[in-house]
Amino acid sequence: IEAEDAAYLRETIGPLHESELGDVLRNLGHDQRQALVRLMGEEFDYTALTEVDEAIRLSIVDAMPNDQVAEALRELDSDDAVYILEDLDEEDRKEILAKLPFRERLRLRRSLEYPEESAGRRMQTEFVAVPPYWTVGQTIDYMRDEEDLPESFAQIFVVDPTFKLLGAVDLDRILRTRRPAKIEEIMHETRHAIPAETDQEEAAQIIEQYDLLSAAVVDETERLVGVLTIDDVIDIVQQEAEEDIRRMGGVGDEEISDTVLTAARSRFLWLLINLATAILASLVIGVFDATIQQMVALAVLMPIVASMGGNAGTQTMTVTVRALASRDLDIYNAGRIVRREVLIGLLNGVVFAVLIGIVASLWFEDVALGQVIAIAMVVNMLAAALAGILIPLLLDHFGADPAISSGTFVTTVTDVVGFFAFLGLAAWWFAV
Amino acid sequence: IEAEDAAYLRETIGPLHESELGDVLRNLGHDQRQALVRLMGEEFDYTALTEVDEAIRLSIVDAMPNDQVAEALRELDSDDAVYILEDLDEEDRKEILAKLPFRERLRLRRSLEYPEESAGRRMQTEFVAVPPYWTVGQTIDYMRDEEDLPESFAQIFVVDPTFKLLGAVDLDRILRTRRPAKIEEIMHETRHAIPAETDQEEAAQIIEQYDLLSAAVVDETERLVGVLTIDDVIDIVQQEAEEDIRRMGGVGDEEISDTVLTAARSRFLWLLINLATAILASLVIGVFDATIQQMVALAVLMPIVASMGGNAGTQTMTVTVRALASRDLDIYNAGRIVRREVLIGLLNGVVFAVLIGIVASLWFEDVALGQVIAIAMVVNMLAAALAGILIPLLLDHFGADPAISSGTFVTTVTDVVGFFAFLGLAAWWFAV
Repeated sequence: IEAEDAAYLRETIGPLHESELGDVLRNLGHDQRQALVRLMGEEFDYTALTEVDEAIRLSIVDAMPNDQVAEALRELDSDDAVYILEDLDEEDRKEILAKLPFRERLRLRRSLEYPEESAGRRMQTEFVAVPPYWTVGQTIDYMRDEEDLPESFAQIFVVDPTFKLLGAVDLDRILRTRRPAKIEEIMHETRHAIPAETDQEEAAQIIEQYDLLSAAVVDETERLVGVLTIDDVIDIVQQEAEEDIRRMGGVGDEEISDTVLTAARSRFLWLLINLATAILASLVIGVFDATIQQMVALAVLMPIVASMGGNAGTQTMTVTVRALASRDLDIYNAGRIVRREVLIGLLNGVVFAVLIGIVASLWFEDVALGQVIAIAMVVNMLAAALAGILIPLLLDHFGADPAISSGTFVTTVTDVVGFFAFLGLAAWWFAV
Repeated sequence: IEAEDAAYLRETIGPLHESELGDVLRNLGHDQRQALVRLMGEEFDYTALTEVDEAIRLSIVDAMPNDQVAEALRELDSDDAVYILEDLDEEDRKEILAKLPFRERLRLRRSLEYPEESAGRRMQTEFVAVPPYWTVGQTIDYMRDEEDLPESFAQIFVVDPTFKLLGAVDLDRILRTRRPAKIEEIMHETRHAIPAETDQEEAAQIIEQYDLLSAAVVDETERLVGVLTIDDVIDIVQQEAEEDIRRMGGVGDEEISDTVLTAARSRFLWLLINLATAILASLVIGVFDATIQQMVALAVLMPIVASMGGNAGTQTMTVTVRALASRDLDIYNAGRIVRREVLIGLLNGVVFAVLIGIVASLWFEDVALGQVIAIAMVVNMLAAALAGILIPLLLDHFGADPAISSGTFVTTVTDVVGFFAFLGLAAWWFAV
C-alpha cells in the first residue's frame, strides 16, 4: 500500500473472500484503509464492509464521495446495501439513494422504513416467486432463461397475482419432481411467514426453531416483500448472544475498534451506578462503625460474606437470564424454578457456612465469631438465590432486558444483605 | 395423558413440529414424559429428543427398551441419531447399534469414533454425490428416480471413483443450467472441506465466515464422509455462546432441568475457589487491622475501592474474552489493545478518583482521607485494566478457555490490589 502499487494489490487482494478482505481492513490503520479502497478501485468487494465494525465501516464510507458509494451499493445484495446505508447520516443517505436507479431506490427505501433490528431491515428483497399453476418444467425453464435472479437461493416462493404469499418450495423438492407436476402440488404452505415489523431476534428464533433455510417476509397485507436467509439468522443469533454477554459484563454496545474516549464514556455510566450502590453498602457498614472498632476481625471477615453472596447471586442470575432468553423459563414453571434456586442456595449456603465458620473460629480463636459468620453466610446465600432469580424475572415482566441491569441490582442486594446480616448479627450477639 | 387417551394424544400431538413437541416434553413431569412416549407409539417423532436437555433425553431413552430405541433411531437422520447415542452408556450403545441394519450401524459407529464436539460427530452421513462427467440432465434424472436421498439438501457434491472430494454444486446453480452442461463445468472447487477431526466450533466458524449453506466433511485421506449443514452451525454457534455466558457466570454446563443436587454440586467448585480468593483478600485486610482500629472510616470505605476495580476489570475482561472468541484480538494487535485498555482505565480511574475523593472528604470531613482513596482508586482501576486484558490473554496463550476462569482471577487481583493500595497507603500516609 505504501508503494501505491495498485496492480500488485489487485492481484493479491482481489481474489480474497469478503470476510478475508474484512480481516485485512481490520488490521490496517485508518489512512491505509482508505488508500486500499482507492487503489483497488472497481476490484474492491464492498461486501467486505459488512464484515467489519461500524466504526471502521463509517470511516471508509464517509471518506468516499457519495457518487462512488452509490456505484458500490448497486453491486451489493439489498440486505448488505441496507446494512451500510443505515449507519450513515440522513443527508448522505438521501443523496446516495437519489443516485440509484428507480427500482433499487424504491427497494432500499422500503427496507429502511422498517424499524431498526426488524425483519424488514435485515431481509433481502431479491427472491424468486412463481404462480401456483406453473409446472415444475416451466419453473426450471424460467430459471434457466431469467437473467435477473438473486445471487443464490435455497427456496422459491409461490404467490398469487397480487403477490400474496401462498407457499414455498425447497429447491431439492423441485429437482426430485418430474416436469409435468404443478408447483401447487409440491409446495408447502408457509405457516411461518414473518411480518416485516417483527424484531430480528424473534424472526431468527422462528427460522431456527423450525430449521428453515429461509423464511418469507410479508407486509401487513400479507404480500411477499423479501426473504430472510439462514446466514442472516446466524449473524443475528451471534449478535444477540454477544449483546447479552456484553450487557451482563456492563460494556453496552462497545466495539473493539471504538476510540478510547468512546469506550471510556460507554463504560462510565455502569461504573457510576456501581459507585452509587457501593456507597450504599458502605453506609450499611457505617452504621456499625462502633462495633467494628471494638472488634476489627469483623472488618477483616465482612468482604467474604458479601463476595460469596455476590458470586452465588451471579450464578443464579446467569441461569435465569439464559433461561429467559431461550424461553425455558416462563410463568408456568417460574414457581418451580424459584423453589429450585432457593434449595440450591440453602444447600450451598449451609456447606459454606460450616466451612467459613470453622476457618473464622480457628483464625481468630473465637467460636462465637465463627457462629455469627456462619449464620450470616446462610442468610446471604438465600438472599442471593432470591435476588438472582426474582430481579431478572421482574425486569423481564416489566419489559426491560434482564441481561442489562440484573448484575448491579443483584450484587447490591447481596452486598447490603451480606454486610447487614454479618455486622448486625455480630453487634447484637456480642452486645448480649 | 392421565386418561391414557392414546387416540386423542396422537391426534393433537402428532402433527406438532419436533421443536414444539420438545416444548411439550419439557413442561411435563418425569412420569408423564414416559407415558406420553409410550402412548404415542409409532406416532412419536423422536427428533424431538434432540430439542430437549440431556437430562430429559436420558430419562426418556433410559426408560425405553433397547429394541425400541434402535427402531426409533432408524427413522432419524444420522446426525440426530448420533446426538442421542453419544449420551448413553457404553453397554446400551453397543446393544442398540447391534440391532441396527449393517449400513446404518457402520455409519453411526464411524461418527461415534470421532472425538466429542468434532465435525465428524455432528455431520450428517446422508448426502448426494455424483461423478464430474455427468451432465446436469443426468443429475436431475438421477434425483428424480433415486429413492434413497437425504430428507433435504442444499448442495450436491462431486467425487471421483474413490470418493475423493472434487467439488460441490449449489442446487440453484443446477436449476439455472441447461441439461447438456457437464457437472464439472458448473461445480466450484470446495476450498473449505472440513477434516472430520476439526473441533465443531472451528468448523462452524468456517461455514459462517464463507456464508456456506453446507460444508463437506472429509476423512484423513480426503474422502467425503459427511456433510455439516447450516442448521447444525446455528446450534453450534448458540451452544458455544451459551457456554461462554455460563462459564463467565460460573455455572459450568448446568441445565435448568438438572436436579437441585446436580446443580448445587456443579456450582460448588466455583464458589469454593471464590471462598479461597476472598480469604486471600481478607488476609490482606488483616495485615492492616491496627490501622483500621485507629480509623474505622477505612473499613467503611474499603469495599468501594475493591468493588469499582472489580467492575472495571469485568468490563475489560468481557471485551477481551469476546474479542478472543471472535478472533478480533490476536498477537498482531494485542499491544494496541492493551494500550487502549490501560488508557480507558486511567481515564475512568481519574474521573472516579475525583468523585470518590470529594465524597469521602465530605462524608468524614477529612481531606487527607479523600486524597488517599482517590489515589487508591486510580491504582486499582489501572490494575483492573491490566488484569482484565492480560489474564484472558495468558489463559488463551496456554490453551485454556479464557471464559471459564478469568472472572475469579481478575476479581482476586482487583480485591487484593484494592485493599492493599487503600489500606497500605492510609497506613503510610497517616503514620507520617
